[in-house]
Amino acid sequence: MSLYDQIDRPTLLLDAATAKRNIARMCDKAGEQNVRLRPHFKTHQSAQIGEWYRAHGVGQITCSSFDMADYFLGNGWDDITVAFPVNIRQMGQINNLAAQSRLGLLVESAETIDFLAANLSNPVDLWIKVDTGNHRTGLSWENTAAFEALARQALGHNVFTLRGLLTHAGQTYQASGAAEVCRIYRESIERLSSIRSALAETGLMLEVSTGDTPGCSLCPDLGKVDEIRPGNYVFYDSQQLRIGSCRAEDIAVAVACPVVAKHAERNEVVIYGGAIHLSKDYLEEDGVRKYGYVCLPGEQRWGAPVPGAYVRGLSQEHGMVKATPSFFNRVKIGDLLCVLPAHSCLTVQVMKQYLTLDGEIIETLN
Amino acid sequence: MSLYDQIDRPTLLLDAATAKRNIARMCDKAGEQNVRLRPHFKTHQSAQIGEWYRAHGVGQITCSSFDMADYFLGNGWDDITVAFPVNIRQMGQINNLAAQSRLGLLVESAETIDFLAANLSNPVDLWIKVDTGNHRTGLSWENTAAFEALARQALGHNVFTLRGLLTHAGQTYQASGAAEVCRIYRESIERLSSIRSALAETGLMLEVSTGDTPGCSLCPDLGKVDEIRPGNYVFYDSQQLRIGSCRAEDIAVAVACPVVAKHAERNEVVIYGGAIHLSKDYLEEDGVRKYGYVCLPGEQRWGAPVPGAYVRGLSQEHGMVKATPSFFNRVKIGDLLCVLPAHSCLTVQVMKQYLTLDGEIIETLN
Repeated sequence: MSLYDQIDRPTLLLDAATAKRNIARMCDKAGEQNVRLRPHFKTHQSAQIGEWYRAHGVGQITCSSFDMADYFLGNGWDDITVAFPVNIRQMGQINNLAAQSRLGLLVESAETIDFLAANLSNPVDLWIKVDTGNHRTGLSWENTAAFEALARQALGHNVFTLRGLLTHAGQTYQASGAAEVCRIYRESIERLSSIRSALAETGLMLEVSTGDTPGCSLCPDLGKVDEIRPGNYVFYDSQQLRIGSCRAEDIAVAVACPVVAKHAERNEVVIYGGAIHLSKDYLEEDGVRKYGYVCLPGEQRWGAPVPGAYVRGLSQEHGMVKATPSFFNRVKIGDLLCVLPAHSCLTVQVMKQYLTLDGEIIETLN
Repeated sequence: MSLYDQIDRPTLLLDAATAKRNIARMCDKAGEQNVRLRPHFKTHQSAQIGEWYRAHGVGQITCSSFDMADYFLGNGWDDITVAFPVNIRQMGQINNLAAQSRLGLLVESAETIDFLAANLSNPVDLWIKVDTGNHRTGLSWENTAAFEALARQALGHNVFTLRGLLTHAGQTYQASGAAEVCRIYRESIERLSSIRSALAETGLMLEVSTGDTPGCSLCPDLGKVDEIRPGNYVFYDSQQLRIGSCRAEDIAVAVACPVVAKHAERNEVVIYGGAIHLSKDYLEEDGVRKYGYVCLPGEQRWGAPVPGAYVRGLSQEHGMVKATPSFFNRVKIGDLLCVLPAHSCLTVQVMKQYLTLDGEIIETLN
């Protein structure tokens, strides 16, 4: 019985060979440029997949929550940055983590630094979050005085090892193509560097950490940074394909979804595969919202994205697939379609486990 | 210690009294109009909450997947319609369910009916899905001949009890206000009725089943239907509040989220509460996308939505809250904000459990 014959419901397929190739490529790139790679593990969330990085000598990771840090600490990772502004309500968990690992925390306010200084029972590394243009979190890169003030505040407490400046240049996700991504990536690093230089003049020597998947994938020169923290590149997805960060053959996950209905009058196929399987993230292309590109199952893995086919909408369990007439005619009720998720991190989060092309189940922390 | 003092991370709060009031109201309305209520349990997904319906004499339910049907069958529900076009790859599970319950299946193609007829080992109820304008699934209501053909095909097999015509008039979710919702609801029922009448003339007597939460909440007259299947009304949410299906005080769930950062230059507050806690569904109001309205914790439950405040964006773990200047100044790092989810069904799906205002944990099937 083939892999696909065993599948009766929406199933997250993992092409392990492709994921391992993606891991190796980024490890090699960082290694060649003497940049420390601290991969973000929020994409795969799996102890077993984490081992694939360790084979390349990776010893430090990034997580997006303290629960995720707990899970990976329990699986042998003891140098972890939680790249999310510290939630001071989790002080007990933070102290437990700090007692057992080299824990990096992210701060951007005097209030948080004060609270940590008063409540930490073990030393931690501290990173100050910089907004280099993404406008989600962090202090604006232009406000040098604010960075100096936070840095000096942190230096006043022995419990902190002030590591440096950290950014996530997520604005690359709005770009299209290598040229625009690299322009944004370079601009972000120049902004980080300007703060570093200004603070160096006052005697404060800081590291800089960056790393979004489009920038780290597409820019040949990683620039003057100490650390990169990309995560998504292990799997990539339809958003990254649209940006140009990867080729279709680099995408390592797909959700196999049974076809449950066909509507010839609008060339649409309904799949069992909705928001609870793919998440509701999407990409936009030529003004059209797409919740993922669509492929057919293949001999080895899945085929190339079918030109003109995409998931046009999702409800809780349904996916509505826009098809071309020829593709529509080829698909039968009961067939499987393979959807390349718009955003693989969120798809992994909702699907909770992988089925490899070899038929192995791989679990995540969920 | 108050309820809120115990919360250290994004937590799905449930106001059980409000949910019970919502359940009672819909049960009463259906009962007074002699319409069978078959509530959709995909919203709450919880055996314990299911009992709150049983107290009103509800004996039949709707589910959106066979896994959900299995879970509720295991919790004493044995009259279940799975309101999703049958996924014929799950034949083994369907046969197990049909052996232990009165199982209703949804079909819209000759292929699926043929497959079921050849593979069912126990009788099932059959509903034919009608598209009355939502354009997601179902055969177009105008195509009377197609309905007659499917009905006659089904009648050719003893394994089927042909129940009737079923629709989900989800197009009410695009409406605003009772007048527009009720116009759409009535139009949908008229369309169902036109098929029923046409088929009755050929000797086929069919039931009709409808039921979206906006229509069932807002239309005083449920119309000439045999059954309604609303689900979301147990909790409501920000989308329903925008539509006008409920008042803010009818909303029975909120996600309590710690404040982790503040950005005065754009009156924004960052919360620990992202796509993995709220889901990425949203509503649009005056051209602005909102991932949920925002309230402050209250003495009894949570307060009224803060005017002008809303979640403007979500990433994996972050929520970006747009605040007014006065609200911004009132909020401190470490405080909790209560987000009324855009779409409570999807929020329950990702959060997996509830914390009631009495401090009780309620589990779901996940």
